[in-house]
Amino acid sequence: MDSIMIYVPILMAIIGLLFMMYKRAWVLKQDAGDGKMKEISDYIYEGALAFLKAEYKLLTFFVIGASIVLAGITFIPGVKTHLLIVVAFIFGAIFSAWAGNMGMKIATKTNVRTTQAARTSLPQALKVSFGGGTVMGLGVAGLAVLGLTAFFIVFFHLLSGGSWQDTEAMTVVLETLAGFSLGAESIALFARVGGGIYTKAADVGADLVGKVEAGIPEDDPRNPATIADNVGDNVGDVAGMGADLFGSYVATVLAAMVLGNYVIKDMGGNIVNEGFGGIGPILLPMAIAGFGILFSIIGTMLVKITSDDAKEKQVQGALNVGNWVSIGLTLVSCYFLVKYMLPETMKMEFFGEGLQDISSMRVFYATIVGLAVGGIISSVTEYYTGLGTKPVLAIVQKSSTGAGTNVIAGLATGMISTFPTVLLFAGAIWASYALAGFYGVALAASAMMATTAMQLAIDAFGPISDNAGGIAEMSELPKEVRTRTDILDSVGNTTAATGKGFAIASAALTSLALFAAYVTFTGIDGINIFKAPVLAMLFVGGMIPVVFSALAMNSVGKAAMDMVYEVRRQFKEIPGIMEGTGKPEYGKCVEISTKAALREMMLPGILTIGFPIAIVLLGKLVYAENNQLVAEMLGGYMAGVTVSGVLWAVFQNNAGGAWDNAKKSFEAGVEINGEMTYKGSDAHKAAVTGDTVGDPFKDTSGPSMNILIKLTCLIGLVIAPILGGDVHTVKDGVAMTCCSAMGECTSMSKEECIEKGCTSKTCKFMNQEVTEEVSKKVMVEKTKTDDENVKATVKVVSTVNGKESVEEFTFEGNEAEVDKEINAIK
Amino acid sequence: MDSIMIYVPILMAIIGLLFMMYKRAWVLKQDAGDGKMKEISDYIYEGALAFLKAEYKLLTFFVIGASIVLAGITFIPGVKTHLLIVVAFIFGAIFSAWAGNMGMKIATKTNVRTTQAARTSLPQALKVSFGGGTVMGLGVAGLAVLGLTAFFIVFFHLLSGGSWQDTEAMTVVLETLAGFSLGAESIALFARVGGGIYTKAADVGADLVGKVEAGIPEDDPRNPATIADNVGDNVGDVAGMGADLFGSYVATVLAAMVLGNYVIKDMGGNIVNEGFGGIGPILLPMAIAGFGILFSIIGTMLVKITSDDAKEKQVQGALNVGNWVSIGLTLVSCYFLVKYMLPETMKMEFFGEGLQDISSMRVFYATIVGLAVGGIISSVTEYYTGLGTKPVLAIVQKSSTGAGTNVIAGLATGMISTFPTVLLFAGAIWASYALAGFYGVALAASAMMATTAMQLAIDAFGPISDNAGGIAEMSELPKEVRTRTDILDSVGNTTAATGKGFAIASAALTSLALFAAYVTFTGIDGINIFKAPVLAMLFVGGMIPVVFSALAMNSVGKAAMDMVYEVRRQFKEIPGIMEGTGKPEYGKCVEISTKAALREMMLPGILTIGFPIAIVLLGKLVYAENNQLVAEMLGGYMAGVTVSGVLWAVFQNNAGGAWDNAKKSFEAGVEINGEMTYKGSDAHKAAVTGDTVGDPFKDTSGPSMNILIKLTCLIGLVIAPILGGDVHTVKDGVAMTCCSAMGECTSMSKEECIEKGCTSKTCKFMNQEVTEEVSKKVMVEKTKTDDENVKATVKVVSTVNGKESVEEFTFEGNEAEVDKEINAIK
Repeated sequence: MDSIMIYVPILMAIIGLLFMMYKRAWVLKQDAGDGKMKEISDYIYEGALAFLKAEYKLLTFFVIGASIVLAGITFIPGVKTHLLIVVAFIFGAIFSAWAGNMGMKIATKTNVRTTQAARTSLPQALKVSFGGGTVMGLGVAGLAVLGLTAFFIVFFHLLSGGSWQDTEAMTVVLETLAGFSLGAESIALFARVGGGIYTKAADVGADLVGKVEAGIPEDDPRNPATIADNVGDNVGDVAGMGADLFGSYVATVLAAMVLGNYVIKDMGGNIVNEGFGGIGPILLPMAIAGFGILFSIIGTMLVKITSDDAKEKQVQGALNVGNWVSIGLTLVSCYFLVKYMLPETMKMEFFGEGLQDISSMRVFYATIVGLAVGGIISSVTEYYTGLGTKPVLAIVQKSSTGAGTNVIAGLATGMISTFPTVLLFAGAIWASYALAGFYGVALAASAMMATTAMQLAIDAFGPISDNAGGIAEMSELPKEVRTRTDILDSVGNTTAATGKGFAIASAALTSLALFAAYVTFTGIDGINIFKAPVLAMLFVGGMIPVVFSALAMNSVGKAAMDMVYEVRRQFKEIPGIMEGTGKPEYGKCVEISTKAALREMMLPGILTIGFPIAIVLLGKLVYAENNQLVAEMLGGYMAGVTVSGVLWAVFQNNAGGAWDNAKKSFEAGVEINGEMTYKGSDAHKAAVTGDTVGDPFKDTSGPSMNILIKLTCLIGLVIAPILGGDVHTVKDGVAMTCCSAMGECTSMSKEECIEKGCTSKTCKFMNQEVTEEVSKKVMVEKTKTDDENVKATVKVVSTVNGKESVEEFTFEGNEAEVDKEINAIK
Repeated sequence: MDSIMIYVPILMAIIGLLFMMYKRAWVLKQDAGDGKMKEISDYIYEGALAFLKAEYKLLTFFVIGASIVLAGITFIPGVKTHLLIVVAFIFGAIFSAWAGNMGMKIATKTNVRTTQAARTSLPQALKVSFGGGTVMGLGVAGLAVLGLTAFFIVFFHLLSGGSWQDTEAMTVVLETLAGFSLGAESIALFARVGGGIYTKAADVGADLVGKVEAGIPEDDPRNPATIADNVGDNVGDVAGMGADLFGSYVATVLAAMVLGNYVIKDMGGNIVNEGFGGIGPILLPMAIAGFGILFSIIGTMLVKITSDDAKEKQVQGALNVGNWVSIGLTLVSCYFLVKYMLPETMKMEFFGEGLQDISSMRVFYATIVGLAVGGIISSVTEYYTGLGTKPVLAIVQKSSTGAGTNVIAGLATGMISTFPTVLLFAGAIWASYALAGFYGVALAASAMMATTAMQLAIDAFGPISDNAGGIAEMSELPKEVRTRTDILDSVGNTTAATGKGFAIASAALTSLALFAAYVTFTGIDGINIFKAPVLAMLFVGGMIPVVFSALAMNSVGKAAMDMVYEVRRQFKEIPGIMEGTGKPEYGKCVEISTKAALREMMLPGILTIGFPIAIVLLGKLVYAENNQLVAEMLGGYMAGVTVSGVLWAVFQNNAGGAWDNAKKSFEAGVEINGEMTYKGSDAHKAAVTGDTVGDPFKDTSGPSMNILIKLTCLIGLVIAPILGGDVHTVKDGVAMTCCSAMGECTSMSKEECIEKGCTSKTCKFMNQEVTEEVSKKVMVEKTKTDDENVKATVKVVSTVNGKESVEEFTFEGNEAEVDKEINAIK
């Protein structure tokens, strides 16, 4: 029978979704302001929905195509993945789109209500804007846990009879479940990239013509691209980020479940006596995710300020309190859940080091590592990108000698920031692995992701506040309204940067967990980069994030140019537009951004999805007889993408963030070479150039890296069963199966099997009723004691069906006699 | 006895050096012009020498320190490397410094003679400037081959008695010889980084104040930094590039020799009957290098133009003829050398695929791969960076919307350029490995590097012409002189970019060969990135090139600021400087660049050398008992540095080159949106900003990547013997040795040895007169034929001291009886 624990995460998810609905009702009840405000807000709402609608329409074709391919895979001989993976894939895609849609709807409804609330007081404005963020966060997290858990339960019942059978059966369940994650991540790719292109095309286009050429301020209603710009904030930062974290969340939990399955395998394949239907290690990550939703709810409730005179610091403080409380509660819950759900001592296979006894406490320590990484990465990111920090001030100083030196300084800052970040990640991988193997790595990621709802609430609050400010400006509201929204917006900028740090940290750990799951699924002996084809693929993998980023940046450039021409046209052709009497055609600009984003997101998408498939095809073509090598090649590619992707994500995000705040520093004035320098100075203009470069870095290509690396590893995981077993033709009439660790068995001749050095661990005999394998190793040492006599020690290591025993004998005397004794042993 | 072939490369090197001396005498005989020209040229000469002197003084301390460390390594128990490695190291450093010094001296002597020659005709100017380049190229290549071959002969006699003993003895010879390469590469690191910082600090400083603030043209004698700027061209592009290629050359040949040693091992350890003293595969790479010098001489003789009306195209054509002829001759010689020196069929161990028969022709095909890569990479580089190419014109177009879009376009171009480059490298690695294993990879690199003398001649000719133009400008010579030098300079810019492509391609292949040599030296089973500590180090390694680049860029920024303040001070304080009556203090600027370069090159140097050592120490601390894992960790680090380093080198070099030529495009005028746009326009200013960003990219951090990856792999190779064997204390009174594949044997208890699963392949018993190891593996298959009877097949695989034999038995009949038979076998 099932353990009741299997239903707990669903319960938590439903609680989260109920609270979300309550919160949404509250937000929607708030005053949405008067005519002009409402009008602008409606424009944004409609523009955002129009984009989503067009995007989803396009993606429907993609989902159909991918479904057919996936279905095809399940029919390949030897692949045990169930056809249900297609259903899971489609639902993963739908859930992801649903989560993005929901988040965007509430965000575009909340913005105007925040503006209206800001007319009364800052605390009220925070309450409304963060309320919107909370709805978004809980919606995403709730749907993720609900979807993943529900599908797990369904597949567990359909494919494994609702109870633990063996590792192989569970592998089929999880392999099929991977479709859900793949669906979610595929949609996320397009949402992130498309959203990123949209938002920056609109932003750059609006700025270049509006601010620079026409000299009108940001968010001025006379600028035809201003609505598109505000839509972009939602499309990119809300829907894109939501889809990204939805994908991470699902992928992390899935990877941890896969690795949990192998913990059970390492323990002998059956731990039903340990409770939880014998699948405690598999249920644990879902449970942590479920409880994380509860703690996120508690955290969001703590976010509030009381004084209308509060500044950025107080607002940031309020967010921090909520965040840390939810992290703290997660930490405590991890302790109890680990204690409760895992066997006190587990056996885990450490590659090259054999089976080791791992106490459940060590798994708990691994979760601490994950939570610590989540916390530290935010500080590191803030150090490199925050207002007034040393690196940002250095960029400000360099602005005095022109745009060139500003750009160099920004690039260098982003590059240097990889130093602590990568050391932190490397340390976390090493530590969590040393504590509890790759299961530890996956649980570190799961713990970190547990408070996703809270993280997203904090993230989404930024663009909502940004929009609220925009609406205040466009509606020409009193100055104090804008001052209040500016405070929220400024905090939002910081949380956006730290949120990106959290997203890449989670993507890195998730990818490693997926990578580990991949290796386990294929049953290969690790990934050896001393094989040249594997090394070559490591190179190719390393190149992909760089080219992906370039494509994304070029796309922004192209789309922005389209926007520039359109805005210029409207300024020229619409009479009275600059005097405020002629009405700009906002819709045209929204349409341009939408079309450009959809058009431009294709190539990076094809690159991401196409390359792993191309490598497998190429590998199969060259090494038709050696699936294992092909699997290693794909593994090398995955490692290359992950390592390079993390580097380029950190570099681009932090460089972009640093440039942005270097530019912002001029608003309050900065001291350069002893002189106070303000907006409008040459140094400020140089800083604006840096920010222009940084915009696609931090909002398009940088954040896309997360999805690139996760999706690459997920595709690998889904392809894994194809590469699982070595397929050989039957020879000599004797059939034998050579099985990968996941139980993919294929026929091959006995000769070949022996030639390949298969052991009883990886091989199963077929058509034979009794199977046995014995290996005996005899080591002899002889030392002459005098001319005739010798002393000999003989050690015999016998292995019978994988079980090893050691015997030792000592003989002394005449050499011939001793030899006889030794031969007898042999 | 030695084969005579061992002395042939030395002969070739001496021919090369003699021709070099003849050519130098010819160049020095040329007219060095009149007073003003001579004066300026002397300033440059002295400034350059002053820098080199200061640099070498500082590096003396480094060499002494490193020598002590190296000496210490040879005393570590189990390390067989001979103390002579210290001598080799010191000479490697001296030779490298000598080559740089020689190149710089001739370059700074040739520049003014080129100017003078340009007063008569373009063909004469080309003859002189290329003559200087030829001296440089032949000097570097000649010294490299001479030094490496001479030390090989000396060590071969001292450590192996001048004839083939066995793989172990040769390994000691080559391991000791690695010191020469390490010395050369260490000096190269500082020369490249120091030179790169010097040249860009002077360049940026001179431009920012001179061109931008004071509005005087480039190379104007009133600019105090102009001499430093011209010195920088020599320090960076001549000495730095020379040291870089000197290092590549030596490292490539060394790596190929190491892998040649393992080819002999795979063939049974003794191929004396095949001729060449049984070391043909080791001598081959040296022979190819030696003949390459000859062919380079022939190539350089073909570089000439006849018409004074020649344009860039004809000059480039003349260089191409010389280049392709020398490459073609090398190809032909490779065919004959391979046929002549290698056994017709060799055995090579392919990791995971076992021993394979490889014909010598396949080695020849691998050299074709190398030569092809050298050719193709130039075309690829030219496509992304050449004047008038699509990517460069795209950057030009983007300049019209400001510096921001120009910078984005340049970055994207550099990033996209990694696509064909990495695919080319990956294909070359895979192909040459598939043809002839890692020996094939190393020989591909050797063939590519064979024409280094020619490549360097073409490379060095660029900065010489650049200087010649500078001298013409500063000496206020007639306009046609500058026009002629401008043609040479323009061609020099293209060759500089393609030369960088060649340098990184050679560095990539060299590093892989070193990487393979490292794995073989340590005797590990490859490098498995599925082990988390190894994966963590892959991440760390990937980060190093990024941080290194950032440090180099920041250094340029800092040094340039020093220069800016000094130039501003001189403009303000020296009366009549702008009118040409006051004389600028050139020396002060030279001093600032020198000091800054020396100061700033330290941190990147420490990073490069310190990290591999830190990883080994950390690894030893955590895994004291598991040298193999530490070796894998270091291997993972090396792979990370190589993959990421290649990417960042290509990205930075090509982005920088593209920006540079985008800016240059404005000189002749470009069409943007249908309008002709020239120098001085807003778009041109934007392009200048891009070029400022690109300068440190292409001249400082980008080219440094080559040395970073080669030096990292070389350090690994020198550390390898420490990690070669598992060091254990003697226990239980029974000593036993556990040996790595390279023959490093260290004591360990028998218990531990058995526990570690050592086999006769990796273990040698010590203190025992008779040693034997037997392993028997029995596989049983039983099939019931009816209720009582069974049919059983028993396969017995016995291994006696590493030799395997297989027996097979079949029994049929009553189960109990069959079991008895089977037990008898067991």
